[in-house]
This record gives sequence, C-alpha cells and structure tokens, in this order.
Amino acid sequence: MKVKNTKTLAYIGEFGFIDIIKKRFSKTGKNAISGIGDDCFCFKSGGQNICITKDMLVQDVHFKIGWTTPYELGQKAVEVNVSDIASMGRVKPEYIFIGLGLPSDIPIEFVKKLYSGIKKSCDKYGILISGGDTVKSDKIIISVTLVGVGNQNVIKRSGSKNGDLIGVTNTFGDAGAGVDILYKYGTKRRFSPDEKYLIKKQSLPKARLKEANKISNYLTSMTDASDGLYISIGLLTKSADIFLDKIPVSKQLKKVVKDEKRQIDYALFGAEDYELVFTVPRSKAKLLKKLVPEISFIGKINNSGKDCKVRYFYNGKEQKTVYSGYKHF
Amino acid sequence: MKVKNTKTLAYIGEFGFIDIIKKRFSKTGKNAISGIGDDCFCFKSGGQNICITKDMLVQDVHFKIGWTTPYELGQKAVEVNVSDIASMGRVKPEYIFIGLGLPSDIPIEFVKKLYSGIKKSCDKYGILISGGDTVKSDKIIISVTLVGVGNQNVIKRSGSKNGDLIGVTNTFGDAGAGVDILYKYGTKRRFSPDEKYLIKKQSLPKARLKEANKISNYLTSMTDASDGLYISIGLLTKSADIFLDKIPVSKQLKKVVKDEKRQIDYALFGAEDYELVFTVPRSKAKLLKKLVPEISFIGKINNSGKDCKVRYFYNGKEQKTVYSGYKHF
Repeated sequence: MKVKNTKTLAYIGEFGFIDIIKKRFSKTGKNAISGIGDDCFCFKSGGQNICITKDMLVQDVHFKIGWTTPYELGQKAVEVNVSDIASMGRVKPEYIFIGLGLPSDIPIEFVKKLYSGIKKSCDKYGILISGGDTVKSDKIIISVTLVGVGNQNVIKRSGSKNGDLIGVTNTFGDAGAGVDILYKYGTKRRFSPDEKYLIKKQSLPKARLKEANKISNYLTSMTDASDGLYISIGLLTKSADIFLDKIPVSKQLKKVVKDEKRQIDYALFGAEDYELVFTVPRSKAKLLKKLVPEISFIGKINNSGKDCKVRYFYNGKEQKTVYSGYKHF
Repeated sequence: MKVKNTKTLAYIGEFGFIDIIKKRFSKTGKNAISGIGDDCFCFKSGGQNICITKDMLVQDVHFKIGWTTPYELGQKAVEVNVSDIASMGRVKPEYIFIGLGLPSDIPIEFVKKLYSGIKKSCDKYGILISGGDTVKSDKIIISVTLVGVGNQNVIKRSGSKNGDLIGVTNTFGDAGAGVDILYKYGTKRRFSPDEKYLIKKQSLPKARLKEANKISNYLTSMTDASDGLYISIGLLTKSADIFLDKIPVSKQLKKVVKDEKRQIDYALFGAEDYELVFTVPRSKAKLLKKLVPEISFIGKINNSGKDCKVRYFYNGKEQKTVYSGYKHF
C-alpha cells in the first residue's frame, strides 16, 4: 500500500472522517425521505416507508467477554437497532440481518446463546430473522441491519420549531455509570443492587419503540441517545435552553454517584442510554405526559438569542458545559 | 463466560453452524418471498419487491493489504453485493449501507481511496450511498448491506424443472487461480499478462447485473458462483448431469495452468468467480445465447435416475468428483 499522506484516522477523528464521507456522497435519491444524518435511511416504496438502520458491535470496543453474557449481547444487538427504528416514529421493525465475525476457536455454546438472545428480542418485537452471513475474524463482530416498515410520516432529526419543548423518556446516565463501574472494579467485586441496576442498563438496554409509537404523531423531531444526551440535543437543534436540574436521573444513580455534578455529567455525556430525545409543540406537552408518564421536559428551542447555541442552565444560572463524551477513534 | 460444551466453531464447521441457525429461525414472514437459502432476502411492499443482501469482508480472511489496492477493494465490496442482487433476476440495486471497522492508525489516504472505489462502483450501477457506521477494530472490516427494488418475480434458487438446461455466464476458475498465484509467489514476482489477468479477476470481479436483467424472464432458478461452481450447482439442484468438458475456461487460465484436470478443478472449486449459474427450459436456450452470447450450457437437470445426485461426465464418461473447495472455518 503506497501512502503519500501519513495522516491517520486517529489524527483526524470521527467528525473529520464523516466530513470526508459526506463530501464524496452528497447525492440523494428520488425516493429517499431521510438519509445520512438521521437514525435510519428511509425511502418510499408504493405508499409505504421503508426504514433501514445498520450497526456494528466489535468485541473489546463495544463489549467485553466476561462483562456481559452472550445471551444479553444478542438481545442488545437487536435492541440498539430497534432504538434507531423507534427514533423515526411509528415504524414497525420487520426484518433483521445478522452478520457475524467469529474466531474459529469460539465455543459453540457461546454462539448458541448469542443467537438465543437475538431470537428473544426479535420475538418480542415480531421481527423476522431474514438472513446474514458469518465470517472468520479474530474478534467477535456483530453487524446488524434492521428494516422497518411504516405508513406514517417519519420523524427526522431536523424539524424542531422555535418554542418547542425538548422532551426525553425515562432517566439518563445509568448506562454510562454502569460501564464506568465495570472499568473501575472489573467483575470480581460483589456489586450492590444499585450498581447491578446501572450495569444492567448498559449491558441490556431497552429500545423505546412502544413509547415512540404512542407519541410520534405530535413530534417535530426525534433521535435516540446512543452517544449521550448532550450529543443528541446537538443533533436536534443548534439553539436551545437546557435546564440541567430537570434532566431525569434514576434513584439508583443518585445512590451510587453521590455528587450531583457528577450525576449530571453522566446524564449529559454518558453513552448508551438509548432513550428518546425529541421536540414537541408546547401545546402538546400535557397530552404527551398522559400518553407516556415517563416523559420529562428538559428545555426548549430558543432561536430568539443573538448567537446560535445550546445554553445550559442550573437553578436559573447559565453554566459552562464542555463536551467530555466518548471518542470513537 | 461459563461453557459446558467445549465444541468450537472450527469443530462443527460452516454447515453445522448454518444448521444451528436454521433450527432457531424457521419462521417466515407473511410478506417474505425468499429467505435464508437464497442470495437475497426479498419481501413485498406495495406491489414492489424489496431485495436485501449483506456481505462482510474481513482483512486477512477475504483480502490482504498489498495484494489489492483500497480502490479495488472498495469496488469489490460493492460488486459482490450487486452480484447477489443480480442473482434474483430483474432487480435494480438502489441503496447501499457501508459499515467499516478500521484500525486507529490506518492512513486517511487508504480510507479515501477505499471510498473512491465504493463510489465508482455505486455510480456505475446508480446506487445511492444511504448510510452506514464506522467503528474501531484491529483489522479492516467492510460490512455492506445492499437494497434492490424490482417489479418482476424474483428468481429463486429453487424452481428448476426436469430437463432444464444448466447455463452459466463467461468463464470459471480465473479468480481461484489468481488467488493461488498470490499465495504461491506473493507480490514480489513480475507477473505475466495472463497471470495479471487472473489476479485481477479475483481482486476486481464484475457483477453480471446487465446479463441477469436480459435473461431473467426465461429462467427457472438462479444463483451466483461466489463459493465456486460446484457449490452453486448444488444450490440449484440435487439431480443433474454436468459435462465437465463444456465448462467454459479462459484462454488465460489455459496458458497459466497447462494441465486440463487442474483447469477443471479451478473451474469447479475455485471461489469468487461471481458468474451467474441458472436453469432454463431447453426451448429458450437459443434465445438466451442470442441475448447474452457469453452464455454456455454445461449440463441438464436429470430427475430420471434412481438415485438423486449430481453426476459429472467428461467426454461422455462419468467421473468421481470430490469436493475440495474453500472451508470457511
């Protein structure tokens, strides 16, 4: 391989990389209705919307043997993709394709349990295992493609209006704290029930498909919080006011992480919560809470300021918030 | 990870593995029209057929840095998936999803050239790059999902009738011989033009989409020869007569591999030719040759014998043919 330019992927980082890809592929198709920059790619086919998402989990990058079971891992591989489908609104996940990279010396029992986990989650959502491929590799790779079918308008990341409220489902920060506990103590410690709860939130997340179905009619934009709430908010809007004291945090996180500033850090920057983050006209806020009581409103779109930015407040006072999330490369 | 059973994947092999998966997922969906056991999964959506295929290429398993260029590799990743779409008949490849696993220290120039190769092949077929994801991994992984849309009946692997002719496009064995040359000599030898031709057939295969479009109306079954002609024939039928002396072999293969028996071995067992293998009623044979002159007929479906098997003949005499193809694990 001849290389003139010695810049590496680590050097330019994930966002530099996405820029390179975007420059090469700016075209959009005539039937495409959402594309790069949304949780799924969607296209029209005979009056239906087909939504497709693709995620790859790599051993020692996204999971570690011993920190999770193959049964949980199989479920997670499905749930994180269902979460992307849920982000598009009222879309039914229908067909899944499982690509596996497996070492030759992997015990068959591991593979069987992985597949049982995949099947469990697929059965839960009525998803048909439709194909896939298996290749040899040094590390375990799980490459999932999930296809959803819907009849209603898909909810994109763009679409929020000035004054819209920013809503979220359930709590934030659990998964991020859970993985930190594993990094800190490994698996040899006897964990408290609260610690176990946080670890499980990371190893076995649940997609909010039911919730998305209930509320999607009223939303102006939506995404899921796979890379952390801070990132998700930035995907929906460039101008908003966020009230840090309104971000919902679990009682388990409060018990394990006593310091409130650290709780908020986990909630903002911790990855893999897979909760929904969305915008909705203020007039629909009450109805949404009725449909899904586990919803909180954490801020509002605010285009009225001179400068275009997301501002963070705590007890009414603006805070300096600097991104400290996960770096992919 | 607790493991009672110490059997490994290498122990049970690829076909044992597929059995495990099949046992777990035998269900079919109400809109599904082809599934596991075909080159694509296809489902109906509002009068259209949506066909999806998924392939994964892993460094040092499917390709080696130095044996190919990133530009060729990008093209190949698209072509092998288009080949699966072509196997389903008159289906237009529309949307592609590129999952990349990349080491942090990979030079950006490599990634740019890989993407330029992907773009070149996508432009050739009018395919829209619709999404994907990039993760960190030790080895380069290219995980492609390709979606095709069609209006006509899809051609499955099952469907051949007694007396149908078995046809193929172009020549066989080139790619298998090409990769063997690389294994034998590495890249330091100065290759002859014939050797270069064979190597190129492996590093830069061409999907036969145009050919599939022209002939699909007349076919009873079809697949592509990704794992070798012998395997492809077995996917289409359990009872056939194959005439080894009719299998088309390139003049380049004949020059590089002098022994005729070895030529036939490459043609039967060499992988990655990505030619079409299909069955057609005898009455349509002449028409097909007119539509695609590069077609050869190499045998016929023969259900009349007592035993159900594929028999191989050379100059009219039955031959013992033992599978010696590629083992995935």
